[in-house]
Amino acid sequence: MITGSILIGSSDIESDEHFDAVDPAIGEAIAPRFSAADAGHVEQACVLADAAAATFAATQPETRAMFLEEIADAILGIGDALMVRAMAETGLPRARLEGERGRTVGQLRMFAEHVRGGDWLHATIDSALPDRAPSARPDLRRRHVALGPVAVFGASNFPLAFSVAGGDTASALAAGCPVVVKGHPAHPGTGELVARAIRSAVQACGLHEGVFSYLPGPSNALGGALVADPRIKAVGFTGSRAGGLALMQLAAARPEPIPVYAEMSSINPILLFPAALRNRAETIATGFVGSLTMGAGQFCTNPGLLIALAGPDLDRFATAAGAALQATAPGQMLTAAIHGNYEAGVEALLGHNAVQLIARGATGQDGCQARAALFATDADNFVADSALGHEVFGSSSIIVRCRDLTQVAEVVAGLEGQLTATLQIDAEDEPAAAELLPLLERKAGRILANGWPTGVEVCHAMVHGGPYPATSDGRTTSVGTLAIERFLRPVCYQNLPAGLLPAALKPDNPWSLGRFVDGQNGVRSAA
Amino acid sequence: MITGSILIGSSDIESDEHFDAVDPAIGEAIAPRFSAADAGHVEQACVLADAAAATFAATQPETRAMFLEEIADAILGIGDALMVRAMAETGLPRARLEGERGRTVGQLRMFAEHVRGGDWLHATIDSALPDRAPSARPDLRRRHVALGPVAVFGASNFPLAFSVAGGDTASALAAGCPVVVKGHPAHPGTGELVARAIRSAVQACGLHEGVFSYLPGPSNALGGALVADPRIKAVGFTGSRAGGLALMQLAAARPEPIPVYAEMSSINPILLFPAALRNRAETIATGFVGSLTMGAGQFCTNPGLLIALAGPDLDRFATAAGAALQATAPGQMLTAAIHGNYEAGVEALLGHNAVQLIARGATGQDGCQARAALFATDADNFVADSALGHEVFGSSSIIVRCRDLTQVAEVVAGLEGQLTATLQIDAEDEPAAAELLPLLERKAGRILANGWPTGVEVCHAMVHGGPYPATSDGRTTSVGTLAIERFLRPVCYQNLPAGLLPAALKPDNPWSLGRFVDGQNGVRSAA
Repeated sequence: MITGSILIGSSDIESDEHFDAVDPAIGEAIAPRFSAADAGHVEQACVLADAAAATFAATQPETRAMFLEEIADAILGIGDALMVRAMAETGLPRARLEGERGRTVGQLRMFAEHVRGGDWLHATIDSALPDRAPSARPDLRRRHVALGPVAVFGASNFPLAFSVAGGDTASALAAGCPVVVKGHPAHPGTGELVARAIRSAVQACGLHEGVFSYLPGPSNALGGALVADPRIKAVGFTGSRAGGLALMQLAAARPEPIPVYAEMSSINPILLFPAALRNRAETIATGFVGSLTMGAGQFCTNPGLLIALAGPDLDRFATAAGAALQATAPGQMLTAAIHGNYEAGVEALLGHNAVQLIARGATGQDGCQARAALFATDADNFVADSALGHEVFGSSSIIVRCRDLTQVAEVVAGLEGQLTATLQIDAEDEPAAAELLPLLERKAGRILANGWPTGVEVCHAMVHGGPYPATSDGRTTSVGTLAIERFLRPVCYQNLPAGLLPAALKPDNPWSLGRFVDGQNGVRSAA
Repeated sequence: MITGSILIGSSDIESDEHFDAVDPAIGEAIAPRFSAADAGHVEQACVLADAAAATFAATQPETRAMFLEEIADAILGIGDALMVRAMAETGLPRARLEGERGRTVGQLRMFAEHVRGGDWLHATIDSALPDRAPSARPDLRRRHVALGPVAVFGASNFPLAFSVAGGDTASALAAGCPVVVKGHPAHPGTGELVARAIRSAVQACGLHEGVFSYLPGPSNALGGALVADPRIKAVGFTGSRAGGLALMQLAAARPEPIPVYAEMSSINPILLFPAALRNRAETIATGFVGSLTMGAGQFCTNPGLLIALAGPDLDRFATAAGAALQATAPGQMLTAAIHGNYEAGVEALLGHNAVQLIARGATGQDGCQARAALFATDADNFVADSALGHEVFGSSSIIVRCRDLTQVAEVVAGLEGQLTATLQIDAEDEPAAAELLPLLERKAGRILANGWPTGVEVCHAMVHGGPYPATSDGRTTSVGTLAIERFLRPVCYQNLPAGLLPAALKPDNPWSLGRFVDGQNGVRSAA
């Protein structure tokens, strides 16, 4: 079932260049060898995607909804082979991968329902006012249409939910955009299984083969060629800041610049307020260590920073967190490269003059196992050295001790854009938290109280985004139904005869949409 | 009342550098001299805007609505002095400027109503599911918030509706973003009058002075400094392609890249279908010449391209359009520079081997008066030379003769992104038009039937935007209520206590918003 092929439309293609899947736990290759796609394959896939774009964009919502559900079913239809392969390629445990598969399938089904609902069409009608003085108003109708072919870059840390059939692919297909995936080389077998599931859904639904192609490969040049292709109209990416910035620059330098939706890096500050710390330092510490070490800390929402007032309550927290951390087992990391970067990041903090080590987790064995690490420093030092605010991808976090709430605000004001900010508060902390909220809203895409940022709910209200450099574009989210908006643009129709209007805007409202008519929302009637 | 000052918050500031307003009809300076803002003034204005950002973003919708209405009233309160000054600085006639003032004031009031309605908050609630297995769902709520300070670049061709208090300013203020305007040097007196009206509204509403500043000046360096300022979070621009591209590059190269909404250039193709041409070539010709020569062709929606099948009906059209054009009076252009560019563009077409002159308008007098021009060429020539598809800003247009409808589609496929595309069709043309529509939707932001693209209605359904390079960002519009979305980003609140939730998301729904609750739209109830 895994052949190591490049999947362009309905064709399996082999190349002369190959690469291996690697089991990170033992550092050994897993069969088969994989064809590495090159610029020629990019062009083939993009030509097909472009050829599919108009008809796919014009499919009825019901057709696209059934297609997304068919993908979900096909992924489940792979059965345990998908779990076994993903475990071998990523070192992630079965329970985590089963949960991630559930999330991936649920996400596809959520977009199917969202597409059916039609709100994403933003059908809007301003009726003609033929008698208006001094000039008549024409009949004006607006709906949103697909941008065109989208390039999706899968992430290593979510081999299902942010990879071949992850949130970017699901939302782009939902919008009516063909997708060309650049497969992540850390899980090529998993990627191919899922790509074949999507292809089978394309065929089962009778769609144009160009709706989906899959280009595996380890080189940056492959991704660069994909972003540079003139037929690509938007890019979805989850990964490192360096990778995201490189794609942003490529996209901005094209003869036709295109949007890049890159979800890059975040240290997800946790603010420990005085009463909460006084009342439950130890409980918070346990919850924190659980969030920090979950999945070896390989989440974009991993809590890499704690901000609190110095004092005995914070000391209690640090003692409890340190003890909990020392008891954590070493975490298997996804790849040797990620493990190496983590170790280098921790080493830099260990060697930093102004940083104290609080505790480390248990020592790991061979095979990319990482020890968790908790550090502390004073706010003055943290503010003085911006490097302390950089992400160390993995289970490493740093406590920043502040003199007072004013200094807490200073530390927050100095932070880069974040995916999340978390408040640990009790009732009497609310006034202080309220004062900080306007600043937090400018810094983060999601603000939590008394929870942990890891665990991103897939729903309507979710924002998995945030100001630069958490993402390339803080106006969007890569999780939840709002993600579909990234791949749409508005088109207005003026005085078009009913026969030429798209169904969403026809006078008799054949899709029974909730339309915004003459300034009134939610009207499901004809117009 | 016009002092020539720079307006930073509530301060009038003079600089050492000055420039003059010029009456384009006589080429002479109009008093007073104007202070030219520099990088130091940019910093002052942006520091103030940043200081105002949080409180202005947090104002209630009603406060911002009243502020917008106050601006509208204050502009009307200037009275005839505004018309007299604008006529002198732009050469535009009184009726046109009175109409533009009405549009500007109407636009501010429309945004006031839109802000009150609250749909732009996108209040969305996914209720907690504490009993969900395998894990509970937290309470998740989303609303959209202001991006932060916005830089607005006024256009020369709409000294009111796309300038100091134009669509970009109105939509940014509506979103809750402070605005720093770079005033256009072609109408500095008009600009200052309007800027003072906005300032008076800021004061009347008791808002932070940093909500609005006005920086007049002729240099590109001034605009560059404004876009580069780290406190600026988005840019609105209407003007030339070269200007827009320069700002896009500056914005992309910032340490924190920001969105640029640049409305740049468009030739607004008119497609003449066979039956329409056969049935009413002469009527269409008259309408076309009216649209082409309106305002000396100085509209971004000016019809610079006609595409039709070669043959006797097109010859009838060309004859009638030529006759109508010859009868048009010369058009007063906005500035000597715009006039010079127009003349150069027409000269290039006159000297082009493959282009035939159909007719020119009456000869102008001194003082930037321009003669309209109509050309024709064959589709093969048009496709072969991309320069023929470039905008000549002014009353110049070119007829492209096609062999058949397939060649019409080829010509359209080769066009750059456009603000508009217009169909002249009769009933029997509808099947052919329907076939072309998917392509037109990929090329243009607005598609019209049997009208003319000039005249942009300010309403909910309007899209004054389009794929690059018509604009920098085809996902948006610069006219109509949808324009507010450019200056907003989503923020999600997870498990926040009711006391900390913003009003739009509080359980008791104090603003009685239509909220999207648990997948149901338009719910105005509590949650």
